[in-house]
Amino acid sequence: MDWLNQVKWNAEGLVPVIAQEVGSKDVLMFAWMNREALSQTAESGRAVYFSRSRGRLWAKGEESGHVQTVQEIRLDCDNDVVLLKVTQLGHVPGIACHTGRHSCFFQLLDKNEWKTVEPVLKDPDSIYT
Amino acid sequence: MDWLNQVKWNAEGLVPVIAQEVGSKDVLMFAWMNREALSQTAESGRAVYFSRSRGRLWAKGEESGHVQTVQEIRLDCDNDVVLLKVTQLGHVPGIACHTGRHSCFFQLLDKNEWKTVEPVLKDPDSIYT
Repeated sequence: MDWLNQVKWNAEGLVPVIAQEVGSKDVLMFAWMNREALSQTAESGRAVYFSRSRGRLWAKGEESGHVQTVQEIRLDCDNDVVLLKVTQLGHVPGIACHTGRHSCFFQLLDKNEWKTVEPVLKDPDSIYT
Repeated sequence: MDWLNQVKWNAEGLVPVIAQEVGSKDVLMFAWMNREALSQTAESGRAVYFSRSRGRLWAKGEESGHVQTVQEIRLDCDNDVVLLKVTQLGHVPGIACHTGRHSCFFQLLDKNEWKTVEPVLKDPDSIYT
């Protein structure tokens, strides 16, 4: 597919991906995709990432049920970063983070310390059973 | 500084950074920081990135005048991605992209094609003179 060829994949064949929630516009998470992940995401309308730690495709929500449906796929000016606009399913409010929080960006720099400023919405032990 | 040591720098000593506009909550751009860039950003309250192409620190707006003041610095759950909440100065509405657009994420996937869906707010030739 030509549109996949236009993406500038890095040396490992990956592209960084930002997931932003539609509505709240909160930045939920950051992950990576390879060509297959982006292709499956576009085809299925559900976010599929590439897990670098597991070395395989990772359908968001496959364990947690916290699936992301994809409203928009955007590409930046250099063709090397993807922005997904998603709806975060499986819990209200949405939980994107494996810690049970809404967003992965819950640590705020405050007086030279990282402080946790967002609540756990669901115990991870009950998400990953 | 301990908080800088808590960031998980990659093999090149860099961390990915997402810049999100305060107010609109638009994702403006994606860049990288090294330790010195993050330190200077926190100290000065203005975004300083590390340009991988130029191999040096890059104070956002140093050429364009499109400076970003930083309201919040956040870190993700794995300590390896930074989210900046910024005010984009130098033009109304803010221009973060070197193409003269508000955001770098102006290409939308539509029927297997990347389509430009955001206007140029200022001619880049008049930004970089």
